Formats: sequence, C-alpha cells, structure tokens
Amino acid sequence: MPRSPLEGTTKATKLLLVLLCWTVLCSAMPDPNYREHLIKMEQSQQTGGRVLLSKAEQQLGVLLHKLKQQEMESSEFPPAMHFFKAKPLIRNSTLFSLLQKMPKGGALHVHDFALVDVDWLVKNVTYRQHCYVCFTDDQSVRFIFASCQPKPVPHCSEWMLLETMRAKIDNCTDLDNSFIRNLTLYTDNPEAAYPNQDVVWKRFEETFLAAWGLVTYAPVFKDYFFEGLKQFNADNVMYLELRALLPQTYELDGTLNDRVWTLKTYQEVVKQFVAEHPDFFGARVIFTAHRGLNASELKEVIKEAVQLQREFPEIMAGFDLVGREDTGRPLWYYREALSLPAELGVSMPYFFHAGETDVQGTDVDQNMLDALLLNTSRIGHGFALVHHPTTKALSRKMGVAVEVCPISNQVLKLVTDMRNHPAAVLMSEGHPIVISSDDPALFGASGLSYDFYEAFVGIAGLKSDTGTLKELAVNSIRYSSLSPKLKEEALVKWQKKWDKFVVENLP
Amino acid sequence: MPRSPLEGTTKATKLLLVLLCWTVLCSAMPDPNYREHLIKMEQSQQTGGRVLLSKAEQQLGVLLHKLKQQEMESSEFPPAMHFFKAKPLIRNSTLFSLLQKMPKGGALHVHDFALVDVDWLVKNVTYRQHCYVCFTDDQSVRFIFASCQPKPVPHCSEWMLLETMRAKIDNCTDLDNSFIRNLTLYTDNPEAAYPNQDVVWKRFEETFLAAWGLVTYAPVFKDYFFEGLKQFNADNVMYLELRALLPQTYELDGTLNDRVWTLKTYQEVVKQFVAEHPDFFGARVIFTAHRGLNASELKEVIKEAVQLQREFPEIMAGFDLVGREDTGRPLWYYREALSLPAELGVSMPYFFHAGETDVQGTDVDQNMLDALLLNTSRIGHGFALVHHPTTKALSRKMGVAVEVCPISNQVLKLVTDMRNHPAAVLMSEGHPIVISSDDPALFGASGLSYDFYEAFVGIAGLKSDTGTLKELAVNSIRYSSLSPKLKEEALVKWQKKWDKFVVENLP
Repeated sequence: MPRSPLEGTTKATKLLLVLLCWTVLCSAMPDPNYREHLIKMEQSQQTGGRVLLSKAEQQLGVLLHKLKQQEMESSEFPPAMHFFKAKPLIRNSTLFSLLQKMPKGGALHVHDFALVDVDWLVKNVTYRQHCYVCFTDDQSVRFIFASCQPKPVPHCSEWMLLETMRAKIDNCTDLDNSFIRNLTLYTDNPEAAYPNQDVVWKRFEETFLAAWGLVTYAPVFKDYFFEGLKQFNADNVMYLELRALLPQTYELDGTLNDRVWTLKTYQEVVKQFVAEHPDFFGARVIFTAHRGLNASELKEVIKEAVQLQREFPEIMAGFDLVGREDTGRPLWYYREALSLPAELGVSMPYFFHAGETDVQGTDVDQNMLDALLLNTSRIGHGFALVHHPTTKALSRKMGVAVEVCPISNQVLKLVTDMRNHPAAVLMSEGHPIVISSDDPALFGASGLSYDFYEAFVGIAGLKSDTGTLKELAVNSIRYSSLSPKLKEEALVKWQKKWDKFVVENLP
Repeated sequence: MPRSPLEGTTKATKLLLVLLCWTVLCSAMPDPNYREHLIKMEQSQQTGGRVLLSKAEQQLGVLLHKLKQQEMESSEFPPAMHFFKAKPLIRNSTLFSLLQKMPKGGALHVHDFALVDVDWLVKNVTYRQHCYVCFTDDQSVRFIFASCQPKPVPHCSEWMLLETMRAKIDNCTDLDNSFIRNLTLYTDNPEAAYPNQDVVWKRFEETFLAAWGLVTYAPVFKDYFFEGLKQFNADNVMYLELRALLPQTYELDGTLNDRVWTLKTYQEVVKQFVAEHPDFFGARVIFTAHRGLNASELKEVIKEAVQLQREFPEIMAGFDLVGREDTGRPLWYYREALSLPAELGVSMPYFFHAGETDVQGTDVDQNMLDALLLNTSRIGHGFALVHHPTTKALSRKMGVAVEVCPISNQVLKLVTDMRNHPAAVLMSEGHPIVISSDDPALFGASGLSYDFYEAFVGIAGLKSDTGTLKELAVNSIRYSSLSPKLKEEALVKWQKKWDKFVVENLP
C-alpha cells in the first residue's frame, strides 16, 4: 500500500507544513523562491554562467566583485567615458592590473599594421638609418627608407632625411610627438575632433598610410611583427590570429618582395618567437583584401588565397575582407568570387568582418547573414547582430563566435557608453563571443587587457564573475582556427597558466 | 501502385529538373531563395512585420521608405544627434510632418507636470494676476499665486509680484526667456551642460520644482491639463494615460484641496474636453508615488490608492512609483506594501517604471523582473530589458508591453545615438512595445510625433514600414488600461482616422 507523503509526521510538523503552504501558495506576495529561481536561471544563461568554478576560482570571484563594485561606484566610471579619457583611470585600477596578469588565451581579431605601440615605431624605427619623412599637403606624414633621395609622390613633394633633420633641431621631442599624433587616433577631445563616423574613419585610414612606409620596409616588417608578438605576450596573450593584407615589402634599394615572402616571413618570425618564448603558443594569418575591389579583382585575390593556403597551411588560417563596411561593397556582391573555393572543392575558411555598422536595414546590414551563408568561421564585430534575431539564432546554431572589439567600436563611433554595447545582449544570452582589440596601437591600447576591462566592467555588468573571464579566455582557443589537436594542446598550456594566476591572486 | 513523382514528365523536363537540382543543391553559392526566405522570416518578426497591409497602405509604405532613406542619407542624421540639436532638422522634415498627421492612438507614458509646452506656462500662466516669483539662491525660480505677499521658503528669501516687476522693465522677453530656461532642460550644448546622469537628473528635478507653484494653483491646474489634452489632440493623439502625483492644489487664499479634488478635477476636465472634441477618446490617471518613500509610508499611500480606485474607477487606471530608479529604492523593497491590494482581494493594476537604468546587475536592475512578479500591466521604459533574457521572455509571455520613450532616454543620458537604443532589439523581435514621450514639455518636444520620428527613423531601421507604424498605434490601444469594450470602441474610432490618413497621404 502506498504511504501518504505525510505519514509518520507529527501533528506539529503537519501544522507547520500547512502554514508553509499557505505562506507560499496563498500569500499575495511573489514567492521569493520562485524569484530566486528565475534570477539564477537568467544568470546561468550569461557568458560564463555555466562554468563550474573551483573553490579558489570562487574566492577570486569575491575579489573581482568587490573591485568591480568599486569601479562602478566611482563618480567617474571609465566604461561610460571615451577610452582616450578613461585610459589613465583604467591603468590605475587594481582590477585592470589583475586583468593584465590574467592569461587571456588568444587575440583573434587584430590587424597587421596596428599591433605595436606607436612609441616603438617613432623611437625605434624612425631613428634607423636611411629613414626619410615627408609632410603631406593634407597635414599627414609619410615615411620611406631609401639609399638615395626618394622621388616625390602624390601629396608629398619633398622627402627629408630624418637623420639630417633631427641633427638641425635642438629638441626632437616635439617632432617625435607630432609623428605619434599622426600615427594614432589619440586626441584630447575626441568628441570635438571626430564629430561623426566619416571624419573618424578618414583619420583612421590616414594613420594606416602614415605607418605604411615604416612597416613595409622589409627589415622593419620582421621586427614589427616580432615586437607585436612581444607586446601581446607581455599582456599574457598566448596566441594571435592576424588579419593581414600581406603587402609587398621593399628593400633599401627599392626592390619589392612578394606575398609569398611576406607570408614566409610571418611564419619564420612566429617560429623564432616561439623558440625564444616557449610559453607562447603561436600565431596564424588571415589574409585580407579590401572591400573596394570589384568582383573580378576579388576573384583573382581568392585564387591567390587558395594557392597560398595550399602552400602555407600551417600559418595561413583563411580569408577576410576589410575596410569600412558602410562605404564598401556588401558581401553578397562578391558571392561568386567567395564561392570559388567551394566550387573548386578546396577548403577556404572565412573570418568575415560583418555588422560593423549601426545603419539598419541596408544591404551592408545583411553582411552577417551572408557571412553565415558563406560558411564563415567567425563574425568580425557583429555589432549589428542583435538587430537580427534570425541571423543571431543561425550564428548560435552554427557555433559561429562573434569577435567583440569594444574600444574599436567606441573610437570609431558606433557606441558611446560601453554599457550600451550590444555585446551586453549577446553576453546576457551566452552567445559565443571572443574579446579582441582590433587595432590597439591606433587607439592607444595594447594587447587585450584594456578591451577585457571594458568588456568585463562595462559590458558584462556586476554579476559577471570568474566564470565569465574563464569562458572568454577558453572561447579564444575554442573558436580559433587551430586544429582540434592544437586546440587541445593550447588549452592544456592555458589551463596551467590560469591555475597559477588564480592561486597567485587569491584575496 | 504508387506513382513515381516524376512519372508522366517528359525527358526534357526531367533533364531540366536535374539541372535545377544541381544548381540549387550542388552549386557552392548560397541559395538565393533560401537567403530570401531567411530575410523575410526575420522581417516578419519585427514590430509590424505580420500586419496585413491594404494596397493603399503598401503605397504609403513606398513613400515612407523613400522619405526615410532621404533622412538616412543626409550628412546630418537627426537620430544620431542629441534631440536638442536634431529638433530643428526633424521639424523641417517631410517625414515628420507625415508622422504629425498620423493618428497615433494613445500616449501611455506621460507625466502630469510635463504635458504642456512651457511657452504656455510663461506667456499665459505667469501673466495672470497675483503671480509671485522668487529667484532661489541656487539659480532656479519658484512661483506662487497669492492674494497677499507670500512668506519666505527655503532657498527663497524674497517673493516679488511679477506684474509689478514686469511694469518696471522695458522688455520682458529676456525675463520670460530666463523662465523658459528654468522650466525645461533645453540648452545649446547639452553634452557640456550635462556631463553625466547625476547632473542632468538634478536639473530635471529642478524644472519640476520650478513648475510646481504654477501648476498646482487650482485654477491653473485645470487649465494646464485642458491645455495638455489640447496639445496632444492637436498632435493626433486620441487618448492619454497620465502618471499623476495627485498633489494637493491651492487656492489664492492659501486653502488646500485634497487628492480627491485633484482626481475629480482630472475627471471633469476630461469630460469637458471630450464634449468639446468628440474625436478625442479620453484620458485616465495612473496615481504615482515617489521611490523615496519608506515601506510603511508607501503602505499608507497604497491604502489611499485602493480607496481612490474604489471611488473613481472610471478615471483611475492604477498605480506606479516614480523618481530616478538608480538612486531610489528597488521594487522588491516595497513588496509587502505592493502586495496589499491582492491580499485585500482588490484589484490594483500596476504600471511600474522599471529598467530605466544602464547599471547592470544591481538590485535596481532587478526591478523589471519584480514588476512582472508583482503583476505589472506594462513596464515603463524597460531600457535594460534586453540585458535580461529570462525577464524579457516572461514579459512577452505575459503580454506586458514596454513603454519606450526615446527622447527621454537620450536627454537623461541613457543613450546617445538612437540607433543604439535597446528598443531596436525589442522591435526586431516584435516584443510588445508602445512609444511615448514621458515629459515632452521638459525636452522641448510635444505630443508623440517627435518620439515616433526617433523610433521609426532612428530605432526601427530602414525596413520598418507602414505596418510598424500601424502596430505601434494599435498597441497603444491594445495595451492601454481601457476595458475590452472601450478598447474596441477606441480601435473603431482610430481605424477611421487611420484610413483617412492613409488615403489623404498617398504618394
């Protein structure tokens, strides 16, 4: 005979149960347990919400929470400010120091010409022999290395040997600072200097042109990449996927090196760097072309990409299109060229920039869907993804992570206050994302830590914890272009660093 | 015997089918039909995406699309600018004129002291007899009507009769303009004047205090509300739900009228207004108390609210809490008081402000969930809802609409560029929303048209169309506090106006 659930309980207990039932079921007040359940359910959905944490990780979480609360209660909340103004505050914060020390895994969205602090470019590279400078008629600069006087180029009537020039002036600091200003977007008053996206993008493209002659000088090219790896490594980033234009580089006598040279050089530099820094895991290259190309031009580039990947499968991860989306051609325009590898039966992983826009409903705004239809491996930026529920669901189903670059989006005027960054929606839903820094050198950032700060403090809210950071770091390996075997190796390496980090930073 | 699906087809057709199959299934290019299907699916999810449109409505949509594209292609895109700077551009746009003419249904989130253009307060009310002014020691003003010299009050040592004062100066325009400045948040350079939310909220509360003595003077109180209805009616809004503090009003001799007087006055003014404007449908009042109250104070207010609703069921719609959420007490703190009506077995519809914040993960950020658990009928603002997937899903399941007030959110510094307004996410998912104007008079807006412009052009993107506008208008009746019978009546009335609007504005 089945026993009554209340059988064996005393009268007093029964009365207590009835009272409890009344309180929960009959009281007009919302049930606190149900409320607690919903809150927990919501929290478990967010990035890192389902990560099982060790005792030590939980303890670290208490510290993280306290530090974050301090930041949020300050009258000047850095993520609500423009990064150029917030940077000194961030740099001084204890939480930032902690994030710097944290092993962050890989940086999956960074560009070839914006890896290295421009201080290094000015203080090291421009002081090398044979460096010429030209002040353009539109208030910018160009550099070139040459064994004899270079010829004038558009906007540039006169090249001056920097060595001679510096010898003539007493104090080189002003000159060097003017170079630095030309090589970054930094300015005291960004709101005034960059009233809209057109203006800031124009300046953004100018800085690339200013750096071009320095970075594409073959000897510098190697050193620049090596220095970049050094700076990311110092920021506790162990792996890099580099969006690279694979430009021709030049020698002092003007001879040009081709794309194969460039790609080979990347491969050699990575090998050398890893040999010297066994803690570093490596780097791969995503070959990029500009959205300004026409369809048949892109077809040729794709053919070249297929060839390069065949020859350099180790270093070459895949292909992407770069440049401002709003003024460029939409992905769908290139569909034929981009379908070429599949038609040839070869694999060409794509890592498309898509949705780096706030203009809704245009052809460009369709790029995210088209990237997915073209079988992209990740979505670069995906700033507009939250406006596209079907596309967002598809991206989740396909396991396609979004590369979130908070500081880049702010400087390029997609968002003002980081708390409004759409990644907050993605993180609240646990959508696969990774954090990256896009062009750290141009924004005055470095490595990944500043972007991790913005994401963790500004975007993810007070309830994000050790699990959030852990998931973001693990994601950067999980969603990388590495083979399953290499992912496994990288994860083991990262886990060791992580465990050490947790133990060393317990409160 | 079952027939083969291809039986009876000719050889040529079979070949064609095979070719077709190859094109669709075997081509490496994404299938354009599948793409089109996904795009349509996404579009059908957005606000208005499933509204069936008549031929005429579709034709109007073509015009709307053209006009919106013009706005988006302009170098100065109003929704990307602060409303104070955008307003002259909006006022001159053809699309705005169209939205003014459009029958917008009801305004469900507007406050009692910010209904009427402040010009009217200054040019009409302050020119009435017996109006005293005082310039406070903190650069604000106070007004009072009195039959003899009023006594000093805090911050206000000297009251001057405005009539006498004006008689002594040659040109009253400067004085009047200074009053206008004190009664609104308008300023030439809002970014500089209001560097953060604390500063703008302080000024916001100041403007209420400045208007207080004018609006709570009993004769003005009636006229003010009448004028408010007139201005909303002129903006083609046919129904109002007013968040009202139900303050004591005063007579010239200083006698005070109680809440019952105030509520009765609202009721009488509505009746009179509807009698004179049979096209107008009516107005109801949501009694509001301040989040600064403590729990037992609120309990008393709730008891009073229950009593008022029993006595004035026609005009009184329900209850809400007002004041800045971030510095006020969270809803959960008041749970006992707010559960009182249910405990008493009486109905007290709630219309809670919740989620008017960008601080994530705090107790205040939990207000939206708690509002739902307390059975709220709508959510005021819900700016933070998109950061709470579980709460968002619950709100949708419960059919609880979010009252989106774009201009208010921008002026009070929750968002800079309207394209980043979180309602864009809600609209893309077809979450139930209504558009309202919160405190139009304080922002230099009026009625609903400016907020409809921001929502339609800035938030909803290029693909939103006649269906979007139609759904927004219908929502304002569907999610109102009206009885099902009155909703039906209001919808019939609205539909007539709408059909006329569509026909009269065909391209």
